[in-house]
Amino acid sequence: MRPSGRAPDEMRAISFEPHFTKHAEGSVLVSFGDTKVICTASVEERVPPFLRGKGEGWVTAEYSMLPRATHTRGSREAAKGKQSGRTQEIQRLIGRSLRSVTDLKALGERQITLDCDVIQADGGTRTAAISGAWVALRLAVDGLLKQGLITADPLPRKVAAVSCGIFKGNPVLDLDYDEDSSADADANFVLIEGGHIAEVQATAEGATYDEEGLLRLLRLARIGCNAIFAAQDKAVGK
Amino acid sequence: MRPSGRAPDEMRAISFEPHFTKHAEGSVLVSFGDTKVICTASVEERVPPFLRGKGEGWVTAEYSMLPRATHTRGSREAAKGKQSGRTQEIQRLIGRSLRSVTDLKALGERQITLDCDVIQADGGTRTAAISGAWVALRLAVDGLLKQGLITADPLPRKVAAVSCGIFKGNPVLDLDYDEDSSADADANFVLIEGGHIAEVQATAEGATYDEEGLLRLLRLARIGCNAIFAAQDKAVGK
Amino acid sequence: MRPSGRAPDEMRAISFEPHFTKHAEGSVLVSFGDTKVICTASVEERVPPFLRGKGEGWVTAEYSMLPRATHTRGSREAAKGKQSGRTQEIQRLIGRSLRSVTDLKALGERQITLDCDVIQADGGTRTAAISGAWVALRLAVDGLLKQGLITADPLPRKVAAVSCGIFKGNPVLDLDYDEDSSADADANFVLIEGGHIAEVQATAEGATYDEEGLLRLLRLARIGCNAIFAAQDKAVGK
Amino acid sequence: MRPSGRAPDEMRAISFEPHFTKHAEGSVLVSFGDTKVICTASVEERVPPFLRGKGEGWVTAEYSMLPRATHTRGSREAAKGKQSGRTQEIQRLIGRSLRSVTDLKALGERQITLDCDVIQADGGTRTAAISGAWVALRLAVDGLLKQGLITADPLPRKVAAVSCGIFKGNPVLDLDYDEDSSADADANFVLIEGGHIAEVQATAEGATYDEEGLLRLLRLARIGCNAIFAAQDKAVGK
Amino acid sequence: MRPSGRAPDEMRAISFEPHFTKHAEGSVLVSFGDTKVICTASVEERVPPFLRGKGEGWVTAEYSMLPRATHTRGSREAAKGKQSGRTQEIQRLIGRSLRSVTDLKALGERQITLDCDVIQADGGTRTAAISGAWVALRLAVDGLLKQGLITADPLPRKVAAVSCGIFKGNPVLDLDYDEDSSADADANFVLIEGGHIAEVQATAEGATYDEEGLLRLLRLARIGCNAIFAAQDKAVGK
Amino acid sequence: MRPSGRAPDEMRAISFEPHFTKHAEGSVLVSFGDTKVICTASVEERVPPFLRGKGEGWVTAEYSMLPRATHTRGSREAAKGKQSGRTQEIQRLIGRSLRSVTDLKALGERQITLDCDVIQADGGTRTAAISGAWVALRLAVDGLLKQGLITADPLPRKVAAVSCGIFKGNPVLDLDYDEDSSADADANFVLIEGGHIAEVQATAEGATYDEEGLLRLLRLARIGCNAIFAAQDKAVGK
Repeated sequence: MRPSGRAPDEMRAISFEPHFTKHAEGSVLVSFGDTKVICTASVEERVPPFLRGKGEGWVTAEYSMLPRATHTRGSREAAKGKQSGRTQEIQRLIGRSLRSVTDLKALGERQITLDCDVIQADGGTRTAAISGAWVALRLAVDGLLKQGLITADPLPRKVAAVSCGIFKGNPVLDLDYDEDSSADADANFVLIEGGHIAEVQATAEGATYDEEGLLRLLRLARIGCNAIFAAQDKAVGK
Repeated sequence: MRPSGRAPDEMRAISFEPHFTKHAEGSVLVSFGDTKVICTASVEERVPPFLRGKGEGWVTAEYSMLPRATHTRGSREAAKGKQSGRTQEIQRLIGRSLRSVTDLKALGERQITLDCDVIQADGGTRTAAISGAWVALRLAVDGLLKQGLITADPLPRKVAAVSCGIFKGNPVLDLDYDEDSSADADANFVLIEGGHIAEVQATAEGATYDEEGLLRLLRLARIGCNAIFAAQDKAVGK
Repeated sequence: MRPSGRAPDEMRAISFEPHFTKHAEGSVLVSFGDTKVICTASVEERVPPFLRGKGEGWVTAEYSMLPRATHTRGSREAAKGKQSGRTQEIQRLIGRSLRSVTDLKALGERQITLDCDVIQADGGTRTAAISGAWVALRLAVDGLLKQGLITADPLPRKVAAVSCGIFKGNPVLDLDYDEDSSADADANFVLIEGGHIAEVQATAEGATYDEEGLLRLLRLARIGCNAIFAAQDKAVGK
Repeated sequence: MRPSGRAPDEMRAISFEPHFTKHAEGSVLVSFGDTKVICTASVEERVPPFLRGKGEGWVTAEYSMLPRATHTRGSREAAKGKQSGRTQEIQRLIGRSLRSVTDLKALGERQITLDCDVIQADGGTRTAAISGAWVALRLAVDGLLKQGLITADPLPRKVAAVSCGIFKGNPVLDLDYDEDSSADADANFVLIEGGHIAEVQATAEGATYDEEGLLRLLRLARIGCNAIFAAQDKAVGK
Repeated sequence: MRPSGRAPDEMRAISFEPHFTKHAEGSVLVSFGDTKVICTASVEERVPPFLRGKGEGWVTAEYSMLPRATHTRGSREAAKGKQSGRTQEIQRLIGRSLRSVTDLKALGERQITLDCDVIQADGGTRTAAISGAWVALRLAVDGLLKQGLITADPLPRKVAAVSCGIFKGNPVLDLDYDEDSSADADANFVLIEGGHIAEVQATAEGATYDEEGLLRLLRLARIGCNAIFAAQDKAVGK
Repeated sequence: MRPSGRAPDEMRAISFEPHFTKHAEGSVLVSFGDTKVICTASVEERVPPFLRGKGEGWVTAEYSMLPRATHTRGSREAAKGKQSGRTQEIQRLIGRSLRSVTDLKALGERQITLDCDVIQADGGTRTAAISGAWVALRLAVDGLLKQGLITADPLPRKVAAVSCGIFKGNPVLDLDYDEDSSADADANFVLIEGGHIAEVQATAEGATYDEEGLLRLLRLARIGCNAIFAAQDKAVGK
């Protein structure tokens, strides 16, 4: 039995509230249950030094949590003067995930930065962030297409992410905080519509997986991501 | 004529959405027009070193803007590794303002941290933050009273803040971004219900004030803060 | 009764020792009683990036205290690796104050940096710094005029600053450390010769002002600044 | 055809040179072909604050590359003043991997730090580091057992890691730099002797996996780790 | 011929102005010609962690230059967020030099920090700082003796420092900036009254010394330090 | 009697293992007894800003110790976020020493960075680093000559360094850790083949030198450096 009463393959309520803030070229408030993340996409007409003059664009991400997004207040990274290893790991993952579905040549020499700021955390913040970042990116790209700044769509496919884990011996989908903090193993899957895998991060401290366990988690992830893809489509009006 | 069509002594629409996030002891989403700030109050049963063993509590504040709260994306302070002088100035102001209405002895040896995170900026972020922080603090203090952790109310009065300025030669109340960026002078007033002044920061670059001009801004500020006090009362259910 | 025996509207002994150091384009040792600050003005033939090519100059300031300028030794900011919020607040105030009397177009595309280093502190270091920085700036500008690098005087008026406060219930002028540390309220006024106000920072922790109290402090500040203007004139040989 | 002429399931020459440095409680120079990493295990009779008084130990890791371990010189992290996101990701992975085979209660209240310093890089530095760190840890634990400081062996199983990837369309084992820099996809597997998976990090930028591809890489990883387990045994004299 | 017209073995005018600032336990303004350094000694009744409970004291030093102490403005180390290698080298040298004449056991468990802040630089700032730091330390120690906090004098001998160099082929004493910037070689000598050497730092970039050259510089240093010892005696009233 | 049984003028076993790593333009593993340092020379076709366009090259150095190079583990400078004063002092010394024998004009507008990473420490790490850095630099310069990138040899002479000290009252050559930690005085000599002195750093805490003592140490240093020069010649194949 899951603490929330959900079935093993049942996602939490997922919602995307597009155009959540007014200045960004794309923005959304994504909720996976009580996990809430503001994702914005900011377009800049410049690329990082290593890409200058190559006719290609770049997609990158930054991630943060408000200090009191969590049960107890965490210290503010800006006040401590550095980002934690966890923060850097997550923002690198978000960037790679979105680049895996972006045609950087079609984007042209511009950079899109995806800011993912968690305002309330209840497990799965990185997977909500990836799923929401796609919506913000899609909205920003739609704006570029509408303005005629680019002609070919650089974002032909969707990407989504979800966590799965082994909780009290059973594989379950979309762990919330209560499950996450006592799960035997925890895996994040980044999947691309159509069935391919962009990234797997399956981590165990203490417990370990066998091959069959990993595959069962992957199958749950497919179920979850299909639900997210549908919600993303609705959010961007497709 | 103000860009927004408001009368000189007219505030923007003000709203407080209490209990905006679920983990903090007090939380609110405050809006001054399109300026939106999440304020949370976090109670910790410890005080800073300089107060240990003195039987007094402490109230402090931290302030930040999401990178894309503004028209163009600003760099993330956590990524740069330090808080700007502007950020530090504002968070010191918020802390002083809230302490000016808190009875630290009545609070007992505990600290309340007010996190003010701007999710959308359109002028007046620091005054919205102070006004919202009071609501978050009030909700947290109500919780302490209800649990019997404190007996006397350490927060007997309200505090609110508003900016005023001289725009195209006329004193106006509650500047939005369009006004703020071309105002001749700009002042932030922190007022206490009942009529006292907690803090004045009247700044001019290029333009200057005379005594009469300062007083006219102060009178506008009283009008604005009275409206905020009423909205705060409603938000905390009084 | 003031600890120093001064009348409520009596300044401490004020002195400016111009040309205190030999390398800077302008320099002065300013004393407000036992508060002593070395102010230097350094001219550089470049402007910050945001002003390049605009035909305008810039005036900025940096502030510091020697570790043992105070009763007990403070840690050195260079050793700690960052400037405190207080330091940043003060140096931003000094910069704004001097820019309020500078015609940046007349200065041309060059930057003048005002370094204010407190070698002994006894209250009022920021107001002494602003008053001294004007002398250093005047001397540097005189040099530019004499060399023919600029033709119109970019500094037509003087600026000075003084602190006032409510000490044991009475408004008093130019607080020293003994008064400052037990004052009910404390305000810094930056005034321009001729009567205008460049900046007011009236702060209260615990105590608060009413309108009349604020005006009484402002009147004391006028008395103080007039005395400083006279001493500045003498220091620069006018 | 692989650039090195290796078969798809062929590891590079692997060697462990135990006791490589004399001060550490355990040390080894591990080579995966031209990738060379010094791993040391340092025992300290204290644990991090979050574990104090719980009767448990801790295993943690730090990772670095000499600036000229690579084809072109990278800047030194100590000189830049911060560790890159990549460095932090890797050292967190090493720590988790070693903790997955350590019985922290049996270790007692002491910490073992595994320093992995790459002196020459040719692909696979993190997997060589994990495999070498186990040897250093084993040697340090053997010392604790011999001195009677612990009685039960806290390290009953071995852990090893290897990278696999899809190079020119074919799954290959133990990528070297030439392969790594042009591989379509890249995965790091951390495996435990006996067949369990401690961690999978399968990453794709541009290319993506399907389920079958992931499993083929996992099967290659098993081949590679079995070879490493044998070499580890020899290195620690078992 | 030296630019200043001095004889090869002639010091610049040396002066010590004791009690230059009022808060420090010992303070002095030391001038070697146009090089001017404020030295203060601050007594604290605690020692660094590595000395706690050993019944010994500690003497340490910090060094800094005001940004415009030099011909062109240098950036402020507190603003840059770190001390340069040169600054750290110098403050370590000052600390070692003063400790070479201090009986740390006689000092008891207290720390004296010597702050050396250069307000005007014209060559030889580190040697002026060492010579002045001794005066500040002597004054602070005299205060401890007078208050009866220590009984035996922990500072039985004087220490002084001077630079020598080879300028246009000739060994000269006490280089000023003009000489220093074009000298073939440059050496700093820290000497103890009575004839012993505490430290030699003889550095050459491009040029080099032979044994005879080094000895000639050492003999000049003895002449210089004897003059400094006499001036130190006068400054502390002996 | 020395702890190692060596004669007072006897060096430890010295060895240079050239081409120790494969990517650097020059590399060597230098051993002075149990002190082992990897030195690499990296050639970059650019110079620091202060030299651009002057037709001259630059030689600079960086130094570090692996955390467990020493008896007890030291914290990693990259993790702490700054280099210690000791590290900076040493790397500045290495850079100056190598520049003292380099003809920077003959090198042309390119920079050679010497990375000296101590993998095992037993006293004398800085002198081993200087001696090894020369070998790495020589190998890199030989490569430039062979490729015809430079025509005149910019490194006509050798440089080497050794420490000497007064141990139990006797001058001894090449101190190891046991001697260094209890020596009365300690001096590092950087000598140039042919007999000149590039640098002397003779430091005493507590003990002091007289002129005769300094000269006796210098004579020991000549003996040691002559042995190093011979070993360097062999390492670079001359």
